[in-house]
Amino acid sequence: MGLNDNVAEPLERLSRLLETDMAAVTALIHARMSSRYAPRIPEVTAHLIEAGGKRLRPMLTVAAARMLGYEGVQHHLLAAAVEYIHTATLLHDDVVDESRQRRGRPTANLLWDNKSSVLVGDYLFARSFQLMTEAGSLRVMEILANASATISEGEVLQLSAAQDLATDEAVYLQVVRGKTAALFSAATEVGGVVAGATEPQVRALYDYGDALGIAFQIVDDVLDYGGIADRIGKNTGDDFRERKLTLPVIKAVALADADERAFWQRTIERGDQRDGDLDQALAILGRHGAIQAARADAVAWAARARAALAALPPHPVRDLLAEMADFVVARVA
Amino acid sequence: MGLNDNVAEPLERLSRLLETDMAAVTALIHARMSSRYAPRIPEVTAHLIEAGGKRLRPMLTVAAARMLGYEGVQHHLLAAAVEYIHTATLLHDDVVDESRQRRGRPTANLLWDNKSSVLVGDYLFARSFQLMTEAGSLRVMEILANASATISEGEVLQLSAAQDLATDEAVYLQVVRGKTAALFSAATEVGGVVAGATEPQVRALYDYGDALGIAFQIVDDVLDYGGIADRIGKNTGDDFRERKLTLPVIKAVALADADERAFWQRTIERGDQRDGDLDQALAILGRHGAIQAARADAVAWAARARAALAALPPHPVRDLLAEMADFVVARVA
Repeated sequence: MGLNDNVAEPLERLSRLLETDMAAVTALIHARMSSRYAPRIPEVTAHLIEAGGKRLRPMLTVAAARMLGYEGVQHHLLAAAVEYIHTATLLHDDVVDESRQRRGRPTANLLWDNKSSVLVGDYLFARSFQLMTEAGSLRVMEILANASATISEGEVLQLSAAQDLATDEAVYLQVVRGKTAALFSAATEVGGVVAGATEPQVRALYDYGDALGIAFQIVDDVLDYGGIADRIGKNTGDDFRERKLTLPVIKAVALADADERAFWQRTIERGDQRDGDLDQALAILGRHGAIQAARADAVAWAARARAALAALPPHPVRDLLAEMADFVVARVA
Repeated sequence: MGLNDNVAEPLERLSRLLETDMAAVTALIHARMSSRYAPRIPEVTAHLIEAGGKRLRPMLTVAAARMLGYEGVQHHLLAAAVEYIHTATLLHDDVVDESRQRRGRPTANLLWDNKSSVLVGDYLFARSFQLMTEAGSLRVMEILANASATISEGEVLQLSAAQDLATDEAVYLQVVRGKTAALFSAATEVGGVVAGATEPQVRALYDYGDALGIAFQIVDDVLDYGGIADRIGKNTGDDFRERKLTLPVIKAVALADADERAFWQRTIERGDQRDGDLDQALAILGRHGAIQAARADAVAWAARARAALAALPPHPVRDLLAEMADFVVARVA
C-alpha cells in the first residue's frame, strides 16, 4: 500500500480537471531531465519518473495555483521542481534503505548502482533549483529550500529514531514531516505564492498540505499492521520486520508493561525476531487499542486539512482537495 | 597531493589579508550546521569541516567581493553556501568512490555509514540553498544552481568516462569542470555579483575561477604520475591503480600504437593490472611526452586565469589571485 493508492479516486478526478496543466508539467519534466554530456542521467530519471507515479505533489502545486485563479504558466516550473525534489529523495532513499523494488519495478540502485542513484539524485536536486530560479520568486525559493532542509533532517533523524524505543510522538511527527508532509505543504504553498495569494491563504495552503501529508503517512503506518479490520495483506508487517518504529508501536510502547517492553526491545531495538513475533506484536497493539488510536489521529489530521480549506475561495478544485482528505482516511475505516 | 597543497603559499597570505571576513564565514558555517532534531548532522559535518581544509572556495567568494570594494556582509552568506556545497559533494563523492580516507582522517562513510553521508550531504545542499535565499539575489541563485547541475553532471559523466578509452580531451574537460572548476568559477562570480560588479567584471571572475580550477585539476593529474621530474612519491600511480583516465593517459592513448592500446585496454578498461604495469605506464607516457604536454596545458590555463584578472581593478587581493595561478603550476616545474 503506497501513498498513491490512498488517494487515487479523488486524485484521478483532479487529474482530469487539471489535464492541460499536467500535460505541460509532464512535458517540462521530460525536457529538463536531459543532459548534454551524461546519458545515464535521463536513463535513470526516466526509469523512476515513468514508473507510473500519480504526480500527486506537482498536482498539488497546480491545484493551489488554479484554485486561486492563476492564469499564467510559472506554476508549471514549480510543479516540475517539486517532482524533481521528490524523485531525488526517492533515489537517495532507495540507496539509504537498500531497497530492491519501488512501484513494482527494480530500483535504480539495483539496475545501475548506488553511485548513479546518489549522483543523479544530486543532479535532479540542482535541476529543481534551476527551475525555481526561472520562476523568479525569492519567496518560492525560500519555501522550497526550507522544505528540502526539513526533508533531509527528517531522514537523518529517522536513522537514529526508527529503532530507538525512546522515540515519542513528537519525534515521529518530525520524521513524518520530513518523509511526507514537508514537500506536500511546500507544493501547495508555492502554488499559492505564484498565484499572488494573500498571507492567510498561503498559511491555509501550508496547513492543508502539512495535515494531508501527516494523515497519509499515519494511514500508511496503520495499514502496514493490517488496518483496524485486521485485513492482513501481503505486505502486513513490513515495518515490523524492518524494525521501523511507527505510530501504532510508539503508542503501544508508551503503555507497555515490563514484558511488552522487553518484547519491543528484542524485536525492534535488537532486531532479534522469531516466528510468531508479528502475531504477538498485533496482539499487543490490539490490547492497547494502538491501531484504533493511530487511526483516530489520522482522522483528526484529515479534518484539519479539510478545515484549512475554509480560508480558500470556493472552487471545484477546493472540493476535490477536501474529498482527498476524507478519502485517505476512509481507507482505514 | 591535494588541491590545497598546490595553492598553499599565496592562499595563506590571502587568508591573512581576509582574516576578519573569513572568521565571520567560519562562524556562520558552524552556526548553520546545527540541527534542532538530528544531532548526527553537526557531528558528521564537523568531522569534515574541521578536518583542516583551507576554505579555498569561500575565500574566492570573499576575495572577489572585497577586490571590487564591497563593504557589506552578504558575501559571508554566499561564502558559507559555497563551502556547504563543497562539503556536500565531498560526502557524496566518498560514498561513490568508496573512499576510506580524506584529509588524512577516516571518511564519514567509514566512521558512520553511507546513509549518513548521503543524507547529511543532502541536508547541507538544502542549507546552502537557504543561505543563498537569505542573500536575496536571484542572479546568485541562478549561478549556484547552474554550478550544482554542472558538478553532478560531471560526476555522472565520470562514472562512464573514467574507464573508457574513447574519452577524449573535451569529455575530460567537462568532467574537470564538474569536479573542480564549476564551483571555483561560481565562487568568484557570486562574490562579484554581490559586490555589484559590471558584466565584464563578472565574466572575468568566472573566467579566472574556471581556468584556475582546470589548471589545479590538471596539475593534480600530472603529479599523480610523479610530475615531470619523476619525483615518485608515496601516492604516485593512485589514478592508474584506480583506473582513472586522466589527461596524461588520454594524451598517450591518442598517440598509442597497437601494443600500447592493448596495454591501456587491459589495465584501465578491464582493470587487469600486474606487477610492473605502473612502470610500463610511466614509460609509455614518457615516450609520447604526455606528462610534459599535460603540464603545458596546465600552464596555459594558469596564464588564462592570470589574464582574466586584467579586467578587474588593481587591488592587493588581485595580486595574490595572480600569484595563486602561477604558484599552482610552479609545483610541476
